[in-house]
Amino acid sequence: MQNFVLHNQTKIIFGRDTVGQIGPETAQLGSKALLVYGQQSIIASGLLTQIKTALTDAGVTIVEHGGVQSNPLLSHVRAGIDLARAKNVDVIVAAGGGSVIDSAKAISAGVPAVHDVWKFFTGKKSIKQTLPLSCVLTLAAAGSEMNGGMVITHDDKQLKFGTGNKLLNPQVSILDPTVTCSVPRDYTVYGAIDAIAHILEFYFTCKDPATPVQDRFMEGLIVSIMESCERLYADLDDYQGRADLMWCSTMALNGWTAAGLGLVGFPMHMIEHTLSAHYNVAHGAGLAVVMPGWLLIQANKNPEKFAQFGRRVMGCEHNTDQAAAMEGVARLKSWFQKMDAPTSLAELGIEKKAIPFLAKESLPLAKVWRLKNYNEQIITEILTSCC
Amino acid sequence: MQNFVLHNQTKIIFGRDTVGQIGPETAQLGSKALLVYGQQSIIASGLLTQIKTALTDAGVTIVEHGGVQSNPLLSHVRAGIDLARAKNVDVIVAAGGGSVIDSAKAISAGVPAVHDVWKFFTGKKSIKQTLPLSCVLTLAAAGSEMNGGMVITHDDKQLKFGTGNKLLNPQVSILDPTVTCSVPRDYTVYGAIDAIAHILEFYFTCKDPATPVQDRFMEGLIVSIMESCERLYADLDDYQGRADLMWCSTMALNGWTAAGLGLVGFPMHMIEHTLSAHYNVAHGAGLAVVMPGWLLIQANKNPEKFAQFGRRVMGCEHNTDQAAAMEGVARLKSWFQKMDAPTSLAELGIEKKAIPFLAKESLPLAKVWRLKNYNEQIITEILTSCC
Repeated sequence: MQNFVLHNQTKIIFGRDTVGQIGPETAQLGSKALLVYGQQSIIASGLLTQIKTALTDAGVTIVEHGGVQSNPLLSHVRAGIDLARAKNVDVIVAAGGGSVIDSAKAISAGVPAVHDVWKFFTGKKSIKQTLPLSCVLTLAAAGSEMNGGMVITHDDKQLKFGTGNKLLNPQVSILDPTVTCSVPRDYTVYGAIDAIAHILEFYFTCKDPATPVQDRFMEGLIVSIMESCERLYADLDDYQGRADLMWCSTMALNGWTAAGLGLVGFPMHMIEHTLSAHYNVAHGAGLAVVMPGWLLIQANKNPEKFAQFGRRVMGCEHNTDQAAAMEGVARLKSWFQKMDAPTSLAELGIEKKAIPFLAKESLPLAKVWRLKNYNEQIITEILTSCC
Repeated sequence: MQNFVLHNQTKIIFGRDTVGQIGPETAQLGSKALLVYGQQSIIASGLLTQIKTALTDAGVTIVEHGGVQSNPLLSHVRAGIDLARAKNVDVIVAAGGGSVIDSAKAISAGVPAVHDVWKFFTGKKSIKQTLPLSCVLTLAAAGSEMNGGMVITHDDKQLKFGTGNKLLNPQVSILDPTVTCSVPRDYTVYGAIDAIAHILEFYFTCKDPATPVQDRFMEGLIVSIMESCERLYADLDDYQGRADLMWCSTMALNGWTAAGLGLVGFPMHMIEHTLSAHYNVAHGAGLAVVMPGWLLIQANKNPEKFAQFGRRVMGCEHNTDQAAAMEGVARLKSWFQKMDAPTSLAELGIEKKAIPFLAKESLPLAKVWRLKNYNEQIITEILTSCC
């Protein structure tokens, strides 16, 4: 186990009928809130009204900044920073999934900064101060509700970059699984796949071979995510499935499973970010394509850990590591297909001839994320394996 | 899954060569520290000197309050409160295991209180304020380093009572596994058994049948604790074993595994507290005796969950739940014996004729901890099953 520091200060309020607590919880952080949210669904469901009422009842004044789209845009973040400054808000409230929360985090860091917010993403500046942030989560997927990470897409440069700082951790996040019952089946599955990808990035890029309890945590999370996803595939209103998936996706990326792993990488996310920066691809759908391709290549190189995954998570009973490793990856891919997720670039509408371009476009993020082994040739090989 | 609030603000600094960080970390919390510690071992090992040097180098003035014994005494806590008040300390530093940290917590709550500290344990008063607390952990067992619980023994009344409040969470805990290499084999094993007991209390007293990911976390923890304990049984200096056991015992009782379980009880701890309040019994040794007795009786009543434990944790392959449940308990008891832990009252020097007395003496804590089903008859039955 590697040395680590773990200090996750986000307060989680989890369960049925908890949304109203956004009012008193936010009132402890500030009196004038920038309310960041997405597009139609939160309005149509009545959730936005519920949140606004709770905030107003608690004495919090609201400045609205709706319209965040998936793969959230820098231009919208910048507009939010301008609005927050003009209206002198002292707290940010995010009501949405990872895209909304990440936008809210970027705004919370950008308001007190004396330079453009994009410099945080290129690594040219580091975050020194943020406005406090409270969240109501509406999608089980990204894990942003309990970590200090954020991902934003640069509109003009078509770069989807991420960065992290513990000052970005929300002060409080409200996780009411019933809120997610309106998420359609495909996006429910994509959320589950996103959470699985977060875990597998850690699990397979960790260089330390001696992380037994972290491995068991990660394996338990994946099994539980798959079980809850299957419950929801059969019945989108299943409370147990919604609750398990929501809590598992939070735990998948809140630092607990990663504590002690040492340096890990996000190569699958790096490649997927390039896909969704250039094509209109849902993040989880992109990961469903990139993951089996990347896993297959790595399983050949390092069968031992993949065999452990195959045996403990996917139920493979092969005697040799090589066979258990390959079978584990094949079974995961089959499970994605069973859940109606795409597993090839073609299903995303991406032609094979685009691969060289995408490989080249992946390089800037590979550099920022310090994935030194990922050159054009290797990314091309991985993307070819995703066909 | 039940609704929950989770807000664990303790900062963990984990790994080799981290002890020196107690200086700068404590300096952020206060300038005059009451340094609470135990008896010979921390002096003999040189660790106390190392901690004092780190504090002094960081500009923190030290008031010493050593001499905490295992099953820590109220009288010593009260003396610490008097000393802290007289010297006007503004931060508490605990250097030790659960007994030392619990004493430090009780002092941190007692100093600002206008009444005797024991009232927190009887439930007559609740904690409103504490002094900040930093810790250097020296024993992997109690989990006190990352939670808001504390257990203290009343000298005169021979009551060993526990209570909890999130204000008792240490601000920072330093977990250097190498510090625990001097712990002898028996206390290393008792620490592992204490951590297993914490997990099994949650696992088996949880009333909610739908806690899949929590179950897998708890099962993974127990497997990892047993593996690390076996490594240490063979070699007390094994770093991986020390590191895994330390981190697992912290996670066993820091609220993560319990989040979503709803109301749980501590019946095994309740009974063990009575044993160690009346006999000179190490807490983990007492639990090694109480646990198989309690488990055996419960496994008969609720075989399904015990069968899951038997199959997933103890590797039982019986087809019927009843057989897998009973075999699981038997294998755990055998494992305790393999680790040279006592598994009968006689091995603790407690005669069978003391059982009625012990059952009666358990009642006050059963009442304070709201274990409504635990009357004299049932506790007698459990203790008889521990013979």
